[in-house]
Amino acid sequence: MACCNQDPCKKQEKTSQKTCCYVSNPYLATMKEDVLYHFDLGSKTHDLPAMFGDIKFVCTGGSSWRMKSFAQYMNALLELGSATADIPDICAHTDRFSMYKVGPVLAVSHGMGIPSISIMLNELLKLLCHAKCTDVTAFRMGTSGGLGVQPGTVVVTRVAMDACFCPHFEQNVMGTIMSYSTMLNECLAQEMVKCSKEINKFNTILGNTLCTSDFYEGQARLDGAFCHYTAEDKMNYLHCAIESGIRNIEMESAVFAAMCNRSGLPGAVICVTLLDRLQGDQISSSHEVLKEYQERPQTLIGYYIKKKFCKK
Amino acid sequence: MACCNQDPCKKQEKTSQKTCCYVSNPYLATMKEDVLYHFDLGSKTHDLPAMFGDIKFVCTGGSSWRMKSFAQYMNALLELGSATADIPDICAHTDRFSMYKVGPVLAVSHGMGIPSISIMLNELLKLLCHAKCTDVTAFRMGTSGGLGVQPGTVVVTRVAMDACFCPHFEQNVMGTIMSYSTMLNECLAQEMVKCSKEINKFNTILGNTLCTSDFYEGQARLDGAFCHYTAEDKMNYLHCAIESGIRNIEMESAVFAAMCNRSGLPGAVICVTLLDRLQGDQISSSHEVLKEYQERPQTLIGYYIKKKFCKK
Repeated sequence: MACCNQDPCKKQEKTSQKTCCYVSNPYLATMKEDVLYHFDLGSKTHDLPAMFGDIKFVCTGGSSWRMKSFAQYMNALLELGSATADIPDICAHTDRFSMYKVGPVLAVSHGMGIPSISIMLNELLKLLCHAKCTDVTAFRMGTSGGLGVQPGTVVVTRVAMDACFCPHFEQNVMGTIMSYSTMLNECLAQEMVKCSKEINKFNTILGNTLCTSDFYEGQARLDGAFCHYTAEDKMNYLHCAIESGIRNIEMESAVFAAMCNRSGLPGAVICVTLLDRLQGDQISSSHEVLKEYQERPQTLIGYYIKKKFCKK
Repeated sequence: MACCNQDPCKKQEKTSQKTCCYVSNPYLATMKEDVLYHFDLGSKTHDLPAMFGDIKFVCTGGSSWRMKSFAQYMNALLELGSATADIPDICAHTDRFSMYKVGPVLAVSHGMGIPSISIMLNELLKLLCHAKCTDVTAFRMGTSGGLGVQPGTVVVTRVAMDACFCPHFEQNVMGTIMSYSTMLNECLAQEMVKCSKEINKFNTILGNTLCTSDFYEGQARLDGAFCHYTAEDKMNYLHCAIESGIRNIEMESAVFAAMCNRSGLPGAVICVTLLDRLQGDQISSSHEVLKEYQERPQTLIGYYIKKKFCKK
């Protein structure tokens, strides 16, 4: 099926293609029903075009609470309702993911790590396709460990890198390693940094993001249950990361970027840094400080969406 | 630090070692405080020995709801309280994981995929160590896709295998691939099968488990957002898996087994199959049928725990 690889920064030519689709799987067309198991939604049991057809922005983050709070924030920001409205969880019958819809914005949680967000993105892309959505932009908002940057800095990812600092996502499919580019949409990333300058409340930088499959040893931490390396090994690794342009470390950006590229969905990864890993491993800031930090990506994404939404 | 690699089937000699510990990290002893960030617990802010010192069984599963329901089930089964008691979530201040304690049983959710359960297990092992727990047995209970077995069959894992059917878990630590055995405790596994025969309500088999990092392409499904292979490729792969002794597919067993081996924690992986992957990809059974299937691993683990608990 065709994909709409649209750049949000380029003026799109109007096309007559109404069934623009983000998936690439010939078997889907042969299925009588598609059960999106981890969303507890289905193409037969739910009227997906009616429920989701008007979505233009998908925002995803690890935590369910943060997604609900983001939906409430957007509700007020887009003047669609109150910031304390009890927006229902569309996936309330499963606790795998949470999903909230506010006007053109869909907020979906993705859990922690590549496999978890990969399940969510597969079902999300199929949902967008079933719902006949077009011109969608995707954001991952999250928290991360910083590298040589002040805690609270927001990093907009240029490219997600693996543990060897390579700009690709590798996936084992039936014993064969498939490799996908993890470059994010450069123009969208630049626009996010520009938005942050307009907001003028916190520092936002463009940088590469290290995406790991483990929070402790995989991120060279000294505070996990196991550690067979030294503090010097750790610092050497982190300094090499900085030399590769890496400014933060998290656990989902690589597959998010890869699936944006494969689907043609323009996407941005926007994570706040909770600590500087050159200074330590433990996240020990107060709940209040962490809460304020975590609001920064949502403020930035909300600002961008409001700008686009109000243009229409 | 020393580990207590105890076999639950062997009579243990009483030792004077009171500080038996499941971690292996010399840096932990140098830390003034250990913040278990994803549990929202800490070694200074919480009296971990008082809260958790009597734990003998850790049961983990993907879903928060299932863990709460298991805790309530164990509450009644061990005659400690009611099956409808509102057992508080010890990790209520974070939505990363949920944790419930009932007598000697700790039930903790782990989300989906290796990275998510890996975070949980790192913090769990440190928690057990801080709390000075000894003689703990760990269980992962879950759902899975079956291979050539009737849906509803419970599979007790002998060894977790990767996508190339190798019995190890590979972890990238600072660019170096570390490899760990994924053999589970054979004696404990055999005992679980024996328990199922005593219960005599559902079929339980010993088998190898394929542990993947993706639910769709990684498990050769034809119903993901992307599919570049054929139905024939899929069937060839699944038949090769069966030839390697694989009877079910899930996404966490490899790191669970590896960390049990590294920590000396005897562990078992007990998953019910929701469908036979040779017959299809979609999980489309009714909620009622799936609910009954999902209760099987908890029934089996509960039976084992009750047997051990009542011996004391």
